[in-house]
Amino acid sequence: MALIVQKFGGTSVGDADRIRAVAEHVARTKAAGNDVVVVVSAMGKFTDDLIRLADDVSPTRPPRELDMLLTAGERISMALVSMALGACGVDSASFTGSQAGIITDTDHTRAKIIEIRPDRLREALDSGLVPVVAGFQGVSTKRDITTLGRGGSDVTAVALAAALKADVCEIYTDVTGVFSADPRVVLKARRLPKVSFDEMMEIAATGGRVLMLRSVEFARRHSVPLHVRSSFTWEPGTWIVEEDPTMEEAVVSAVTDDTSEAKITVGGVPDRPGIAARLFRELANRGINVDMIVQNTSAKGMTDISFTVGKTDLEAATKACELVKEEIGATEVTSDDNIGRVSIIGAGMKSNPGVTALMFETLSNNGINIEMISTSSIRISCVMRAEKVADAVRHLHTAFGLDAA
Amino acid sequence: MALIVQKFGGTSVGDADRIRAVAEHVARTKAAGNDVVVVVSAMGKFTDDLIRLADDVSPTRPPRELDMLLTAGERISMALVSMALGACGVDSASFTGSQAGIITDTDHTRAKIIEIRPDRLREALDSGLVPVVAGFQGVSTKRDITTLGRGGSDVTAVALAAALKADVCEIYTDVTGVFSADPRVVLKARRLPKVSFDEMMEIAATGGRVLMLRSVEFARRHSVPLHVRSSFTWEPGTWIVEEDPTMEEAVVSAVTDDTSEAKITVGGVPDRPGIAARLFRELANRGINVDMIVQNTSAKGMTDISFTVGKTDLEAATKACELVKEEIGATEVTSDDNIGRVSIIGAGMKSNPGVTALMFETLSNNGINIEMISTSSIRISCVMRAEKVADAVRHLHTAFGLDAA
Repeated sequence: MALIVQKFGGTSVGDADRIRAVAEHVARTKAAGNDVVVVVSAMGKFTDDLIRLADDVSPTRPPRELDMLLTAGERISMALVSMALGACGVDSASFTGSQAGIITDTDHTRAKIIEIRPDRLREALDSGLVPVVAGFQGVSTKRDITTLGRGGSDVTAVALAAALKADVCEIYTDVTGVFSADPRVVLKARRLPKVSFDEMMEIAATGGRVLMLRSVEFARRHSVPLHVRSSFTWEPGTWIVEEDPTMEEAVVSAVTDDTSEAKITVGGVPDRPGIAARLFRELANRGINVDMIVQNTSAKGMTDISFTVGKTDLEAATKACELVKEEIGATEVTSDDNIGRVSIIGAGMKSNPGVTALMFETLSNNGINIEMISTSSIRISCVMRAEKVADAVRHLHTAFGLDAA
Repeated sequence: MALIVQKFGGTSVGDADRIRAVAEHVARTKAAGNDVVVVVSAMGKFTDDLIRLADDVSPTRPPRELDMLLTAGERISMALVSMALGACGVDSASFTGSQAGIITDTDHTRAKIIEIRPDRLREALDSGLVPVVAGFQGVSTKRDITTLGRGGSDVTAVALAAALKADVCEIYTDVTGVFSADPRVVLKARRLPKVSFDEMMEIAATGGRVLMLRSVEFARRHSVPLHVRSSFTWEPGTWIVEEDPTMEEAVVSAVTDDTSEAKITVGGVPDRPGIAARLFRELANRGINVDMIVQNTSAKGMTDISFTVGKTDLEAATKACELVKEEIGATEVTSDDNIGRVSIIGAGMKSNPGVTALMFETLSNNGINIEMISTSSIRISCVMRAEKVADAVRHLHTAFGLDAA
């Protein structure tokens, strides 16, 4: 008998029909002899409706009150799912984040889990119930209601799976799994039956939209096997697991793309210690998340530093750079929001020296100019013009033998 | 400086405009130098929407899950009211029933408050905040979320006012106060500036719709002055206070009517001890609330017992009577759901022997037959045909000098 955590996102519990379908699936899982813990998000666009209401009521949204407001969404879906389970003959009980023992810090609207005390869930499981837990929420060390920020329901599911030592954490969503590329860009993209945590982290970090980096990191740290699958087809999806050293690894598993970022270049910077630190401290102080950073080798004691940030942070980031420009002795700050990034990811890349060359050749043969390059041991990313991204993804997908037959 | 508990019902927080109006009123109260604790209901028809969703999802509604579902409503309105207060420059913090320390028994959907631990509210008040508390909800001794049943938000407000020793508990609603009769029935009905707890309890028990009996009882027991008033006009409404022995009391304050009940008569019952007890025990065991009970003096050792129950309980009550009919030796059980009850209420009735006679004369002169009579020291109720009720209320209102000039 396995213990399975099943997490259902907003579209999976979007209306009464979908909620009944979810309950039937949970009932089947339970009937197959498994213990099940269910984690739910708010129904469909309910959270957006609440935010609209808040905007109507007040120009400001105090974070503590916003959290109180938004957590109503999961409360509704968890009670409905529990009722639907009852209608399927499955005994269950719903638990708020607080009741499920999800203790967070006090950073409202993006709290971090600091401890899980799953006593009530264990009791419920021991007495044969299916606990239905509100995703995305917890209670702070100051006893206030908190939310976990974007992708928070996945984090709840993974954290509970870790705390309860579940055999698998199933993430149900509106796609059938993780793909070798975005199926909207590459028609021949294939669903990956299995990827390693490391690969999945790179996929999430470079544009894969199925899972947030944060929940994959959490799962890897606690060795919680993830299974991403569809609540519309109920077919097996993609398993995200520890790397299996006995198996031969795919050289390249996936091609990802991301056009949500912009590039800033700080030019003519003296090549001496402390310059980069001063620049990125200024950005960090303003809460700006920097993604890729590239610095070329110095020529005549001068260098250029380029980095990417989310487009929504571009204005603030440019301002920060202008502010320290003189202090760090830079000659210019330029920005470009018409860029895109294409990455290839594969655990087998480490032992295959030809991968980089094939990637660059493929892009070059198709007239695509590379503007920035960054690599990790299992990923190569190239920045290019935004309008070249779709083309680049398709050619790389073919070149690395990923196209479905 | 006074401490004022202000409770706002569903229509008072029905949309963003109304919520902003509520916040402005609270801000004015606070600016006048008072401490304020706000208690809110769910917005307008939101609770009905949730119940409809539950019906779509499952044919049954486990009480624990129903409570979890419904408490989402107050969570939304309290967070929005708190945000709106912020927009008015008033610092506030919202609290769930659980956070406000409202401890209940485990009787889901109609829990009773067994203790209030208002430490967090006191702390909030001490630091200058306006606490905004979810009405209608609490946390059980088993740490589950409970709701307090019909009129529960009023009970929350009164209970908090008692626990915090507030100077007054203001109940804001969509009418301007308590009236001498239902204004829809009697055009000349007057708003009563002040009624005693005893009078208000009789009014609530006999058809007055403004306050539930339960919250008035609670307020009387804890000597919490109530002020029922409108959140649309913001004018002073009706004060419900301890009887003031120094003032002359109105002989009759109000005429109430109720057509929600039906009558059952158990006829030909032997007049001996234990018969009534057996009958009403059987009804109590089925959770049927009996209201008026009338038993005539025995003739030839036989008597009739008549009583009223809510129309929704009529079938179950009739069945219970049929079941014990033989055992108690009754000859027949008849029921009648076409009745209505008209009551006159006044604390001054006690010392005015002519009141009963004037009531009966007034009804008789207008061709209205009295079918059952029951009295308390400050109330006389008559059961009559349902279609005669409106007429009876109007004539009594005039006869007892209650018509507005």
